[in-house]
Parts: sequence; structure tokens; C-alpha cells
Amino acid sequence: MPYPKVDVDEWRLSVKGCVEEPLHLTYNDLLRLPQITQSVTLECAGNKRALRDPKTRGEQFLLGAISNAVWTGVPLQTILYLAGIRPEAQEIVFQGMDVGFRTDIPDLLSYSRSLPVTKAIHPDTLLALFMNYEPLPAKHGFPVRLVVPGWYAMGSVKWLRRILVIEHPFDGPYQSRDYVLYTRPDDYAHGVPITEIQVNSSIAYPTDQQTVRRGNQYVYGIAWSGSNNVTEIDISTDGGHIWQPADWIDSEQRYTWRRWSFHWKADLPGEYMIMSRASDESGAVQRQQALWNVKGYVNNSIHQVKVYVE
Amino acid sequence: MPYPKVDVDEWRLSVKGCVEEPLHLTYNDLLRLPQITQSVTLECAGNKRALRDPKTRGEQFLLGAISNAVWTGVPLQTILYLAGIRPEAQEIVFQGMDVGFRTDIPDLLSYSRSLPVTKAIHPDTLLALFMNYEPLPAKHGFPVRLVVPGWYAMGSVKWLRRILVIEHPFDGPYQSRDYVLYTRPDDYAHGVPITEIQVNSSIAYPTDQQTVRRGNQYVYGIAWSGSNNVTEIDISTDGGHIWQPADWIDSEQRYTWRRWSFHWKADLPGEYMIMSRASDESGAVQRQQALWNVKGYVNNSIHQVKVYVE
Repeated sequence: MPYPKVDVDEWRLSVKGCVEEPLHLTYNDLLRLPQITQSVTLECAGNKRALRDPKTRGEQFLLGAISNAVWTGVPLQTILYLAGIRPEAQEIVFQGMDVGFRTDIPDLLSYSRSLPVTKAIHPDTLLALFMNYEPLPAKHGFPVRLVVPGWYAMGSVKWLRRILVIEHPFDGPYQSRDYVLYTRPDDYAHGVPITEIQVNSSIAYPTDQQTVRRGNQYVYGIAWSGSNNVTEIDISTDGGHIWQPADWIDSEQRYTWRRWSFHWKADLPGEYMIMSRASDESGAVQRQQALWNVKGYVNNSIHQVKVYVE
Repeated sequence: MPYPKVDVDEWRLSVKGCVEEPLHLTYNDLLRLPQITQSVTLECAGNKRALRDPKTRGEQFLLGAISNAVWTGVPLQTILYLAGIRPEAQEIVFQGMDVGFRTDIPDLLSYSRSLPVTKAIHPDTLLALFMNYEPLPAKHGFPVRLVVPGWYAMGSVKWLRRILVIEHPFDGPYQSRDYVLYTRPDDYAHGVPITEIQVNSSIAYPTDQQTVRRGNQYVYGIAWSGSNNVTEIDISTDGGHIWQPADWIDSEQRYTWRRWSFHWKADLPGEYMIMSRASDESGAVQRQQALWNVKGYVNNSIHQVKVYVE
């Protein structure tokens, strides 16, 4: 499917529902409002699904369904204060311009997700107009996308066209069927909605099944968490028996991944299982096996790669 | 590593060794020689390595290490006739401008591969100057690359700088250690060099672990072989019990993949194992399990994806 194409002169962002003053904002209206800038890592809830064993249903993402960018835009709270949320408001629904069919619903559907009011009015939740100091590229949601720092990226709705304030929980399929942790097979009655990014790390080099030269090696990777800063990263080169701290390349920055490196004295030829394990300031630490769930979301298992030293 | 960057005014292609008349050709020299154009699929010998079970060493390619393009350039035989190969010539070595380190050799090395004289003077073997009717992009080997139709892509040396005619077999590491089928663990004495692309096919849609809607579905993919045309493509939707022919989207064209589609009446919800199996005009047919080898090359196992119908 092509990305939604938008004529900014005709585009309007409507803010409706349980508000004092419905709004119809132009792109220029948004550009004229005060902007903030922050670095935010966006991770797909299905990142690393392909590493699950046994396999789980859904797109088989490896390590690449994550990225980091600097976002500039209008705090969502500014818009909500302009519209005036009524006290009965419970959730805010964000509707994108991207439409498609699902297997479980007959009609054409646009992508919609909600936020509780508390997260929506958090000062870091953003209507982003710029990505890395340039207008949003078409594929990243031009003209305006939501950026919900600390949450998995399903919440950061792209190509926004409508904000609806409602008095009840939103039950759209991308809220109630997808992006929910169902931890028992065939039991869709009890699920936990996905919100905060869980502490995680990936080894970028060496890659799984790679052969490296004997001697001094450096292992590289990234570590991240949701709204908690990631504070520790430990590496094992012997399959999890001995753990040693790696060195941070980036300092702590909220909502933002941190690159790390680890000096590995790979003096003896052989097979090595290299593992990375991150912890965050809340005390959360990656486990050997992430929680199993039907759709394989939130895979924050300790990452491991098998490497051969020659 | 960045791609080699070439100033075409200074670049020369030297043709030396066991020849009557060594050549130093400029880019303009090559442009002025008669050109031919042909469509050629290039597949990495490690394509689909990640689908091997058990895993094998090397980069974990999935389905994407294959592409097709229309190549225009000077038949290699033209150059070899101009230089005059001597009767003692046994192989032709092609040296690229891409350099790097290996784990098993201390020195910096440029990528080099050889062809036997018979394959080198085959009228379809090409010094390509254009890809899809435009000058080669930097990453595809500008200014000139070899295109060896029907062979795995390790033979199609990019960023050419030197052609050396030799009187003995070439034993560079990319010829004698890599791109060789070692079929017994730890036995590097008996190997079969990789040459011709083996008959193969991939399912592009649906993807593994995808959920699709009940009713009429189309399965899409590609099938290919080396110097033999691919002639038949059969699909199973029940894990290999019943096979039915798919429909060709593309007609037969030598050295070129063919897209196919298969009308699948997915009327009943459930789990399906969809498989594709191609045959070529030599009678070769994909097997359930491709030949195991240490480095996991030439994975032409029948491709299978698990699909859920809802």
C-alpha cells in the first residue's frame, strides 16, 4: 500500500468529542504554536518476534524494528488545553489517514489508537511536525504524527487527521485485539494491553553465526527502556556464566537508546555464545526468556549471538 | 566499509598475463566497443542460509539475497580476443577494487575470482557498464563489473580493475576456501566449488506466520534456475501431500527469474503449510532438504511458510 499523500493546504486536524471548543487546525496553525524538541526511540511491539522459539504469529521482525530520531512539534497538552477537555473525558482517540482491511472485520478501516488522559496531557507527548529537524518524511507520517515517548510505537499514530475525546474506553481492533498480551493459547478473554517499552538490548556486532579473527575484538550494540533510563549493560561471552559491564558510548538520555561497546579478548579459537543484558533505573532487568504470548509481542529476552573465533 | 569510489578519467582496466597483447582500457574504450543487453538474475550463494535448520555459519540471509536486472556491456570474449589468449591459458582471474581483511589471512586483500576459459569466452559472459539502462550505481560495481549469467553471484566481480590470464588453477581464498561445498564437518580437503545456480523458488506472499482472510487468496512468488530455464512450479497448501501447478506471470527467459501466482481457495479457517517447488528444463527439481554443507551455501530446499486463515 502507498503511504497516505497529503495536500497540506487542504489538510485539517480536527479535535472533537468531549471538549468545550472543537478545533479544525491547519498545518500553519500547528507551525505557529510553541514547539519542543526531544530524542525518542520508537520500537515496534513486534521487534525481535523472529527470535522467538517457538515461533509466534505475525510479521517475522528480527532486530531492525526499532529506530531513534529527534522529534520537534507541539505538546499534545497545548492542543487539548485549547480545545478544553471536559471532566467526563476518559480517553483520547487518534485516527490516522492510513486505511486497510483486516481479516476479522469486513469494512475498510483507518488506523486508530487511544491514550488515557493522563498520558495524553503528559508534557512529553508530542504532535510531531519535524523528524531530525526536517518536515516529517511521507513514510513517517507527514504532515503530523503523534509521538508517545516510552510506549511501544503502535501508540505513535502517523498521518493524523482526527483527535476524538471520549467518555469511555476505546475498543477499536488495534486497541483490543492487536497490541494486547494474551498469555494463554486460545484465551482472548484475559489480555494485558501493551504500553511501556520494556528494558531491552541488542547486539549489533558481531552478528549471529559470524566468524571473527582471533585477538582483540569489540562487541557493539544498543540498550533501551521505556520511560525509565537504561542504566546498566552486562555482556557474557560464555553463554551466561560470567557477566561483565560494557562501556557506554552514549550518556543517559530519557526515552533514548544508548550505544555500548565491550572489549572482548578473543584469544582462543572456538565457538562463543555472546549475550547482552540491560537493566533500567526501576530495577527491571532482561530475563533469559521473555513472557510468552500468542502474538509474540515485547520480546525482551536476553539477546544472544553465536560467534566463531578463528 | 564504503564502496570503492572511482574517477573514471583515471581508471584503467588492465588485461595481462598469458596474452599476446596486454591491454590498458579506458572507460571510453569500453563504451565504444559493441554492447549486448540481457536480463540476468544474480543470487548470492548464501541466499536463504537463515532458513537452514540446523543453522550454518555465515551471514544469516533470508529470502532477499537475490535480484534481477537488465545488464548492458561488452561481451568478455571481445576483450579476450583483442588481447589474444595464448593456448596455455587455463583460467581468467578478475580482481575487484574492494579490499578488506579476512580472519584466515594476515594481509589486506582485494576480492578476486576466476573463470575457466570456456565460461569466460561464452558469448553471454559480460563486462557490464549499465544496469537497467543506466550507468552502474556505485554499489553495483561502477564503472565496470563482470556478469556471469547462470552462476551464483560470487563470480560476478564488481569494481573491476584487472583481468589476469593464468596457466594454472587460481587458488585465492574466495575461490578455494569460500564458495566451496564442504559436505562433511571439519573436512576441508574434499570440496566442490560452487558454480551454476540450482533450481529454486521462493514464496513472497503470504509470509511465514502471516494471517489471511478466509476465501479466495493468491499466493505469489518467484522461481529461477541457472543456465537452464525454469519450466514448472508446483504449490502445495497442505504441507506437501497434494501439489498443483501455479500460473506463470512471466514467460521463459534464460538466466531470469519468473514470477508466478497461485489461486488458493482458502475457505476453511485453520493453519496451512504452503510450499513451492520448481523444476527446470534439465529435469532438476527442488528437494525437501537441500544438500547440507558447512557454510550453508546453495539452499534450494522447497520453500515453506506457515499461514493462518481466519
